[in-house]
Amino acid sequence: MVTVFGDLAQQETARISGQALNHLARLIGLKPEAVRVALHRLRKDGWIDSQRSGRTSAYHLTPFGRARSAEASPLIYAKSPQAQEAWLVLTDPALPAMEYDGTGAWLTANTLIAPAEPTGEGVYASLIGPEATLPGWMTARICAPELARQSRDLVERLRALREQLEQHSLSPPQIAALRVLVVHSWRRVALKAPDLPGHVFPKDWAGQACRDLVADLLAQLPAQRLNILEQSVSETRRTG
Amino acid sequence: MVTVFGDLAQQETARISGQALNHLARLIGLKPEAVRVALHRLRKDGWIDSQRSGRTSAYHLTPFGRARSAEASPLIYAKSPQAQEAWLVLTDPALPAMEYDGTGAWLTANTLIAPAEPTGEGVYASLIGPEATLPGWMTARICAPELARQSRDLVERLRALREQLEQHSLSPPQIAALRVLVVHSWRRVALKAPDLPGHVFPKDWAGQACRDLVADLLAQLPAQRLNILEQSVSETRRTG
Repeated sequence: MVTVFGDLAQQETARISGQALNHLARLIGLKPEAVRVALHRLRKDGWIDSQRSGRTSAYHLTPFGRARSAEASPLIYAKSPQAQEAWLVLTDPALPAMEYDGTGAWLTANTLIAPAEPTGEGVYASLIGPEATLPGWMTARICAPELARQSRDLVERLRALREQLEQHSLSPPQIAALRVLVVHSWRRVALKAPDLPGHVFPKDWAGQACRDLVADLLAQLPAQRLNILEQSVSETRRTG
Repeated sequence: MVTVFGDLAQQETARISGQALNHLARLIGLKPEAVRVALHRLRKDGWIDSQRSGRTSAYHLTPFGRARSAEASPLIYAKSPQAQEAWLVLTDPALPAMEYDGTGAWLTANTLIAPAEPTGEGVYASLIGPEATLPGWMTARICAPELARQSRDLVERLRALREQLEQHSLSPPQIAALRVLVVHSWRRVALKAPDLPGHVFPKDWAGQACRDLVADLLAQLPAQRLNILEQSVSETRRTG
């Protein structure tokens, strides 16, 4: 559901009707109960709000939910990692772990791979150039073998979807639902990986192949205007 | 005594008589008992051996003792550190500490500053350039504050000796004894410091000032030929 709002309704004025949400959810394979629980939780956590209008409700992201979505968007939609550099950072092992809110990866209690040179008392930082060869134990702490495996599996699934797409003509809600599925599947992998350049990842990490395929698929599954989507949904409801 | 042999009698054919050793020891301020104990221990440890010749003994370094002396000599007599480079080395924290017989400094159980790029499974190494600024906790593990203090104290003492030297005319045994004292005092500091380039040491480490002063003093206190030394000693014994 976070992906539905993030992909379809991240703009400040965007509203999605309960009918459209339920229709998309059905296409994605979610049951109405699951949708109700998800909407209840998102509203409780302050991500979304709704307004009644006659017999239906219109849902929208709150400023908080919009800010969280906007934060995650570059990591999900960008065609390459945001981070251009990787720095090896050592902090004083006699001090408590450094306060660090970046997206790096800790190697040990006082050793960090960070996307930028951090400033701070007692910090030593050295750039890891693209020519560097990192040993396996380091790349495994940047991206665990299981996450690398998930990235390779996703490549297979996205390739299979691309082949399928060529053989079908899709309605606006179907396009929107597939977009959500593509984004959601990559989001689950992308947000688990630190935002660091590709050269510090294990060789079997397929993150860049995923990004390329996601960009390719989203170009074939263009973002649907909400009014066209709503119209298509109500037509389907009347005729189906 | 190790310094006496290392400085005066490191050559394979070099021999020092018991009289000359005792004379030098007295000039240095060692009692005859201390000399006997030191010679006994050095012989027991395989550093030296002796040959009787009439009423006197002639002492010399064994091949083992000569090899150990030759190993330490560059660290003591060189005008600059042997190491030209410093490398930050990370080893796999899940493995036992790396086998390493170089002269670097360990920062943590898996982080080392080494004078050369080590080869080995799972090792990551990055050059620490002369322009790098190392935080205090790192330089303190390369050279403890106490050792830095000793180096500054030694600078003061060597400067004072240099001033004194200008006012005295010295005999060959006195020159040899002073050489031994100069070398010995620097040896005690030098061999405690890792062989790494100056730019990774704390700013208050005075190792290079010590090296410069030692070189300067040893030029003023030239190495004495053993035969001249022995002759001077026996003359002193006859006349004194």
